[in-house]
Amino acid sequence: MLRYLDVQTVISLIRKTGVEKSLSLLADYLADDFKRWNEFHKSPRAACHSPQGVIEVMPIADGQFYSFKYVNGHPGNTAKHLPTVMAFGVLAETETGVPILLSEMTLLTGLRTASTSALIAKHLARRNSKRMAIIGCGAQSEFQILAFKAVMGITDVVAFDLDAKAIEKLQRNLAGTGVTIKAASSAREAVKGADIVTTITAAKAKQAVLTPDMVEPGMHINGVGGDCPGKTELHPDVLRNARVVVEYEPQTRIEGDIQQMTGNFKVTEFWKIITGAEQGRSDDQQITVFDSVGFAIEDFSALRMMNDLAKAADAGTALDLIPDLADPKDLFALLTKGA
Amino acid sequence: MLRYLDVQTVISLIRKTGVEKSLSLLADYLADDFKRWNEFHKSPRAACHSPQGVIEVMPIADGQFYSFKYVNGHPGNTAKHLPTVMAFGVLAETETGVPILLSEMTLLTGLRTASTSALIAKHLARRNSKRMAIIGCGAQSEFQILAFKAVMGITDVVAFDLDAKAIEKLQRNLAGTGVTIKAASSAREAVKGADIVTTITAAKAKQAVLTPDMVEPGMHINGVGGDCPGKTELHPDVLRNARVVVEYEPQTRIEGDIQQMTGNFKVTEFWKIITGAEQGRSDDQQITVFDSVGFAIEDFSALRMMNDLAKAADAGTALDLIPDLADPKDLFALLTKGA
Repeated sequence: MLRYLDVQTVISLIRKTGVEKSLSLLADYLADDFKRWNEFHKSPRAACHSPQGVIEVMPIADGQFYSFKYVNGHPGNTAKHLPTVMAFGVLAETETGVPILLSEMTLLTGLRTASTSALIAKHLARRNSKRMAIIGCGAQSEFQILAFKAVMGITDVVAFDLDAKAIEKLQRNLAGTGVTIKAASSAREAVKGADIVTTITAAKAKQAVLTPDMVEPGMHINGVGGDCPGKTELHPDVLRNARVVVEYEPQTRIEGDIQQMTGNFKVTEFWKIITGAEQGRSDDQQITVFDSVGFAIEDFSALRMMNDLAKAADAGTALDLIPDLADPKDLFALLTKGA
Repeated sequence: MLRYLDVQTVISLIRKTGVEKSLSLLADYLADDFKRWNEFHKSPRAACHSPQGVIEVMPIADGQFYSFKYVNGHPGNTAKHLPTVMAFGVLAETETGVPILLSEMTLLTGLRTASTSALIAKHLARRNSKRMAIIGCGAQSEFQILAFKAVMGITDVVAFDLDAKAIEKLQRNLAGTGVTIKAASSAREAVKGADIVTTITAAKAKQAVLTPDMVEPGMHINGVGGDCPGKTELHPDVLRNARVVVEYEPQTRIEGDIQQMTGNFKVTEFWKIITGAEQGRSDDQQITVFDSVGFAIEDFSALRMMNDLAKAADAGTALDLIPDLADPKDLFALLTKGA
């Protein structure tokens, strides 16, 4: 049976589990999968670019499951009252190729990006981190903040956005969650004294949201918005002065903030840190950066979690997307005898 | 709206249109798309191999539509009463990334492979071709024969399979279609005197189903079963003595019968013939070969046709796979306010 989770079913499952609990549970699934990094068949994403945007499929597999996510990126969509990013994904059995789950992933992409940031910060930020600055209060900001609360206990947030209404939306959406969100009047003001700095701005341009003079010793920088060619947020010197961690190096070299650096600029893949193969932070003075772009393994983890949640709750509906053949060698019988 | 066509809906649409009419209509869609070859953004298929098989996504796009097909190949599946090949596909708008059609494609893959073979034979086989030999009477055989009837008027078929029951199944399935199917006791006997030879055997091995001594002057060979690394059907000398036509050269070099030849072995992509950029058959004595492997453009054509048929018949159901956001910048509102 192919189980189908539409948007409302995913919302219901996340609400039933609890948003914060879902984010921390997803961080557990992510940790499990990053620890098994070498068991995965990793492919580059297959991207089709057009003048208006990009459409990608992101496949990955281990011995048990295969997954892919369909995701677009069309900056002009908001003017048409469409989301910039829309996504759905499929989980299949590696041994047979049978698809077992089709799920919405527009919402799940928000969750998995945030849980990945929080998981990686847990391994890189100072242990006593208390305050997070967030630069950019768009569609991802609530997820990021709640993931840092769920995984690291962060409840003290200072937010900045060029659009004051975006900060108000963030404050409104997270009212009653126990997170204090103070509005700053500049990125510089927001960052001052923060333990963790999350940059997650929308402009598709080479920006320097964070410059070296704003960065304090020991900060962890969670750089989320520099995630495709031509879109960066961190000044090159911020990267140069830091220990930089990435998901999957070949992809991040093209899409991440490190696209500004030469090919020999040193980065560390996160799986090496979570497995203990390499050290994380060296001391409380070191500056650490997670250069997030989003990798297929994170969608794999999200689909695996949703499959488990849906099975436990008996949620979703069955789709007849694959024929049930009386004789697998007689496909034509479908046309004469029906499904 | 994302329109969903399940297996039964696709069957109903094909039956309503008529199987042969669907195959010739699809050949028209294919001809339109092959003629626009240079308008397409062509990607290699993204394949995940495992010890049991392969799972692939095959994306392609033009300025209007993007499509991908999910398809597996697991030879051991029949022992588990599962089809060896299962497929589904999505059609989306290139300009926005909005998916508009999700359809079963296990059946459609059978149709599009056959219509492609017939379309290419129409441009390569001798004009007065009357008799087709078919070697291999598996799941694809009925589709191939009906496509050659619909597109080229072929009604005289001689069939061979190592399994006599497979020939009987083929004869039974096509009883009443106006095609005469004579059983041969060997491949050699089937091929003798044929104008067109279709090879479509299942064994994943380097075979020589067709050897040079079996090939007569002027024959067109429709080589369908040699379609992945390690799986060939034509003796190298059959290829050496023929004009060889392929879909998309970079893919066929890896997957087709020409995997047996060196990289400089001359082949012609079909779009050059259908656009008149290159000559097809030179004379009635030339031997022509279509080395079929299946390319994404064919799935694109099939999805485009099904989208038109479904729209005209108002068929299928709507899926809520993509959220409808009141404010595209406020994704989190889904969790607080619902879809």
